[in-house]
Amino acid sequence: MTHILIIGGGGMLGQKLAHHISAEQTFSPDARVSLFDLSFPVEGAPGEITVGDIAAPNSAKLLAAQRPDVIFHLAAIVSGQAEADFDLGWDVNLMTTWALLNALRDEHNATSGAYRPRLVFASSIAVFGAPFPERIDDEFLCAPLTSYGAQKAASELMISDFSRKGYIDGISLRLPTLCVRPGKANAAASSFFSGIIREPLNGLEAVLPVDDTVRHWHASPRAAARFLTHAADLDTKLLNDRRALNMPGISCTVAEQIEALRTIAGQDAVNLIKHVPDPDIERIVKGWPRDFQTDRALELGFRAESSFEDIIRVYLEDDFRA
Amino acid sequence: MTHILIIGGGGMLGQKLAHHISAEQTFSPDARVSLFDLSFPVEGAPGEITVGDIAAPNSAKLLAAQRPDVIFHLAAIVSGQAEADFDLGWDVNLMTTWALLNALRDEHNATSGAYRPRLVFASSIAVFGAPFPERIDDEFLCAPLTSYGAQKAASELMISDFSRKGYIDGISLRLPTLCVRPGKANAAASSFFSGIIREPLNGLEAVLPVDDTVRHWHASPRAAARFLTHAADLDTKLLNDRRALNMPGISCTVAEQIEALRTIAGQDAVNLIKHVPDPDIERIVKGWPRDFQTDRALELGFRAESSFEDIIRVYLEDDFRA
Repeated sequence: MTHILIIGGGGMLGQKLAHHISAEQTFSPDARVSLFDLSFPVEGAPGEITVGDIAAPNSAKLLAAQRPDVIFHLAAIVSGQAEADFDLGWDVNLMTTWALLNALRDEHNATSGAYRPRLVFASSIAVFGAPFPERIDDEFLCAPLTSYGAQKAASELMISDFSRKGYIDGISLRLPTLCVRPGKANAAASSFFSGIIREPLNGLEAVLPVDDTVRHWHASPRAAARFLTHAADLDTKLLNDRRALNMPGISCTVAEQIEALRTIAGQDAVNLIKHVPDPDIERIVKGWPRDFQTDRALELGFRAESSFEDIIRVYLEDDFRA
Repeated sequence: MTHILIIGGGGMLGQKLAHHISAEQTFSPDARVSLFDLSFPVEGAPGEITVGDIAAPNSAKLLAAQRPDVIFHLAAIVSGQAEADFDLGWDVNLMTTWALLNALRDEHNATSGAYRPRLVFASSIAVFGAPFPERIDDEFLCAPLTSYGAQKAASELMISDFSRKGYIDGISLRLPTLCVRPGKANAAASSFFSGIIREPLNGLEAVLPVDDTVRHWHASPRAAARFLTHAADLDTKLLNDRRALNMPGISCTVAEQIEALRTIAGQDAVNLIKHVPDPDIERIVKGWPRDFQTDRALELGFRAESSFEDIIRVYLEDDFRA
């Protein structure tokens, strides 16, 4: 029986993933799905729930001791919070990856090498920092300009090295900004990219803290859940030891996002967006990528939406409650 | 009075650096130079010596508490050993960097931000992993294929982020393979690049474990000591938040190295080189860079030798004892 563990399973992406696994039966029908997180939504996705702090001593050990076949490591302090609380960001975003990898290696060694789990890590396009080329390709350097990006990039290095040594079989997916996120705004500096679509669709005002010429890189939560299960299934030999992958997405400006909203929901929805510049968010977002050439991921079968309108439609289908 | 600390001051490069600082008075004439390492050569370079293990608890704290103005962090487990002893490599090559950065940040905070030392970190071209372009430029990705390379790359990320936040003022130099290393062969997989020159010059046999078509990237220990002092003095604003730099060097094949040896020391010296293929070393070296385009470093004033013959002459001037 396949055992799937989702660390960070209570978060938005963890819940999307658990729903997706259950609805699509992406693993064997009798697969056991465990979710680990600080908290869970009341009406959560199907799975065995464990409430705990992955950053607490022994959490990684206890989870590894169950020897899950596939581990999705999604737990993270978001970018804005990692910038505000330096220690917390490094502790949660890097040192828990480190603890998890070592705990998995201990199980690998305890089984004389028989245990070698697939680890799928949610990395981020924040590993890249400006100045960029117009489109970032698969060989562009990681030069993060946020603590969050540095923590994700360092985690990728560890995951690649533990994999190269055969202790685990890891893969890191540099996810686009997920849009349209359901629910409430969060502390991520990228939160507004969803807010300016989600709030107007729900008849609420939304704040746009940056200029509408800002270009960014998006994929839907549904696409991200599919990236993750596709990565869990992938023949990692095809990665040729480059185990961090830029995921596909849609590159568009805020103005183009707003145009797509107008097409789908009309001018009344667009009128609910208020431009209130926020210098802190402007500064962070300035250091973020705008467009990618993702040949490697596409060759490996990862697929995103093909327009921002499609991204809005996914939100309406999956998360909108009129 | 400027206080200079060299962590790894007892090693080959640390000693070169201490001699260079003393001979050239690269800092103020009354600069205090402290050297910290597990052991030191009997006739060592001038400086205050402390014998200790940087990986021991409290070492980083005790060193940071002295609030040195400039810290050269050269302590490392070499590539071959980091490959053989996985735990030791990560502990020494990454986790001591982490402990050092946190200890320096504590001093920064204890002085309300007044203390912000220059940290010069000896990184390595091992942060790059094959496949490469013919020449690696300043924007090529880090995809290390050794634990040593991964540890150096992750250290760079930490140093950049602590610097971006203003806790330290760091810079990481990706040193070429240092050649010709004086003294004895060490456990580094790159040791033979020096051995095939050094041993014949001293009338000894040398083993060449790879094919002579292998191309690699070299600079002399003297050039490396100059890179380090140049970095200690550099206006880091010029780095535009990209604090890891590929250093200049000489790209040549083993055959070209041997040609240079023939020019300087004759056929008798060349006859002392025995080709004994070593599959382990061949495999590691295959993952290493061959050539670089180092525009950024050159613009910032870093200078290496201009031919491999010059590199041999530096060895004869600095280290050869007939």
